Amino acid sequence: MNTVRLGIIGYGAQGGLYARLITEDRVPGMSVGAICDNDPEKVAKITEDHPDTPVYSDYKELLASGDVDAVVTTVPHYLHPEMAIAAIDAGLHTLVDKPAGVYTSQVQEMNDFAAAHPDVTFALMFNQRANPLYQRIKEIVEAGEIGAIRRSNWIITTWWRPMAYYKQSDWRATWGGEGGGVLVNQVPHQLDLWQWICGVPQSVYSKVAYGFRRDIAVEDEVTALVDYGNGATGVLITAVHDVIGTDRFEILGDKGKIVVEGSKTATVTRLTKDEREISDTMTGPEVRELFKGNLDTTELYTTETLEYNRPWGQQHASVLENFAAHILDGTPLIAPGSDGMTGVRLANAIHLSSWLGREVPIDFDQSEYLQLLNERIRAEGKFPEREA
Amino acid sequence: MNTVRLGIIGYGAQGGLYARLITEDRVPGMSVGAICDNDPEKVAKITEDHPDTPVYSDYKELLASGDVDAVVTTVPHYLHPEMAIAAIDAGLHTLVDKPAGVYTSQVQEMNDFAAAHPDVTFALMFNQRANPLYQRIKEIVEAGEIGAIRRSNWIITTWWRPMAYYKQSDWRATWGGEGGGVLVNQVPHQLDLWQWICGVPQSVYSKVAYGFRRDIAVEDEVTALVDYGNGATGVLITAVHDVIGTDRFEILGDKGKIVVEGSKTATVTRLTKDEREISDTMTGPEVRELFKGNLDTTELYTTETLEYNRPWGQQHASVLENFAAHILDGTPLIAPGSDGMTGVRLANAIHLSSWLGREVPIDFDQSEYLQLLNERIRAEGKFPEREA
Repeated sequence: MNTVRLGIIGYGAQGGLYARLITEDRVPGMSVGAICDNDPEKVAKITEDHPDTPVYSDYKELLASGDVDAVVTTVPHYLHPEMAIAAIDAGLHTLVDKPAGVYTSQVQEMNDFAAAHPDVTFALMFNQRANPLYQRIKEIVEAGEIGAIRRSNWIITTWWRPMAYYKQSDWRATWGGEGGGVLVNQVPHQLDLWQWICGVPQSVYSKVAYGFRRDIAVEDEVTALVDYGNGATGVLITAVHDVIGTDRFEILGDKGKIVVEGSKTATVTRLTKDEREISDTMTGPEVRELFKGNLDTTELYTTETLEYNRPWGQQHASVLENFAAHILDGTPLIAPGSDGMTGVRLANAIHLSSWLGREVPIDFDQSEYLQLLNERIRAEGKFPEREA
Repeated sequence: MNTVRLGIIGYGAQGGLYARLITEDRVPGMSVGAICDNDPEKVAKITEDHPDTPVYSDYKELLASGDVDAVVTTVPHYLHPEMAIAAIDAGLHTLVDKPAGVYTSQVQEMNDFAAAHPDVTFALMFNQRANPLYQRIKEIVEAGEIGAIRRSNWIITTWWRPMAYYKQSDWRATWGGEGGGVLVNQVPHQLDLWQWICGVPQSVYSKVAYGFRRDIAVEDEVTALVDYGNGATGVLITAVHDVIGTDRFEILGDKGKIVVEGSKTATVTRLTKDEREISDTMTGPEVRELFKGNLDTTELYTTETLEYNRPWGQQHASVLENFAAHILDGTPLIAPGSDGMTGVRLANAIHLSSWLGREVPIDFDQSEYLQLLNERIRAEGKFPEREA
């Protein structure tokens, strides 16, 4: 195989973008094999946009068609695990859009099924992992250049969504159709990057606002305070109602600090010694000079500024290219499919903490989460309850 | 009276600064009437620095001396209420350094006593309230220019303190002598400004690290997540172990946003309309253009940059001058003494939440707080327990 023929399941904004990126030759090693959508209007749009491409309205027919070697699922989040399992079962390489699913037990089922089919490539569309800025930051942290992480703080409120966005479709911003708000739709990118770079926390306490500034049932603002169990803590704040929007990610380590602004620039400060050593060896007289403003602390560190600017679509093209390369020659995946669990688990823990009004462990009771989610689906009365 | 003769109780760094500001004629309407310290070395230093000024080693002798019209207390925090009550009882105007005290019941006793003596001026040294930047921000918020506050977030880690700082004196960074760490010593400024500008929260959840990066019994890092009871939330993060330090305060309102950097510059964004109205009136086609990056959102707001740079000592001189002016001609106080309660109460609530591992109301059980504080004082074994 020289080219991976991709089947795109779901022709919304993302599905349309992926088709365009591939047909514009921005994804080496990949062609569009077929496109599927169960909405007749979308099917007509596919035919109009891509007249030479086979079109399906039932994804199972696409899987059985022989037109494709791989699929990407850009469908409502609840459906990702079910479709991924069907695709893997059909022997097709599978790229799942984020989030991997809505609740952990369905993601676990998908991950277990994929693990039992190691010949099939299973990956996630975490396009922001393809941002060279975050790749570089991960390298710096993993190399120990800023020492052990003591605190991280991400304010990510650039996800401004006007009300008309939520009125686009019936499943949007519902418990039964989408499974949540900003936590399952917009911020999975940051839930992934945060844990990819800073690690997985042990427990979570949250304040989550449901229908706070939008007429929706699900969350539109979140503050999560996490504990890594080793003294380190972290805070993530996100919201859909900040027109201007802040994207500021700060990581403090024993030997330095990284401040990322706008996902484009990062200021990396590297201490000459471990902070505790600097603290312990500074004398009383030096401290007095410090307080008088007479001590030049800039000798204690160096500062580097990183700047990258990769267009949004280019990140997605990179993940598609990487997915194809893994299939074709075994290139390591940017985001293996099983990595999708950490983001879904953290999103669930944030919901759960707010529902229970207390801190919850990251390995919370999955059946309790699903029960409380189903209570909300039942109260909403629009979609069926979900099964473990 | 044309000039207020100030008695300075405590000749440490702050007492020395205030004496210097006044004797250098930087405080109109005020002279140094006497200085007191119970440490013989400090008494010698006073005599050396201010040879013409009466010196006392017992503050009660200073209060009875007739040398002063007013006092300022720059002593270990536990002593503030006791000394303020004695000074007010002696008919002297009283300026208390921050924090007003260590636990709320002692501050309440002081406030009640002062309220019963309305002829005596009772004020607090919240010097950062004299920063014109924060004064301007308070005006903007109170005038409703950014609408109802929905979220605030202050990262204030510029309080770097090397270990030698803590070794300066026996009471420093102990439960019995100081009553806490960064919450009672450094961050009372921000605990005051935050509530002065954004209001008093209804409940608090915290993660507090005790002796995390310093060999001390008390807290050296704090994350507090507060709830205002109306959907609004706030986060404050502080630490003493960040060499570089961040000071970034963000306030999001319905009609705008303020971001303060380094307590020196502020970016004030004012929306042309309430955010919810912008959200509700934007059409589906406009939202699609927004997502394609074709919608010019800069038409939705204006941006103003504020910049002030007032030297540290000048803020203290301003509060001293204001204290004198209030005594001499009734000029409104920048920080009335009773305002000290909000900061102490929030600091106590942050401690208490971390000790109990759960959210606590801002009107927590004061006796429970004191009991848990005394447990720590007892375990430390260096100082007497405290009474309600």
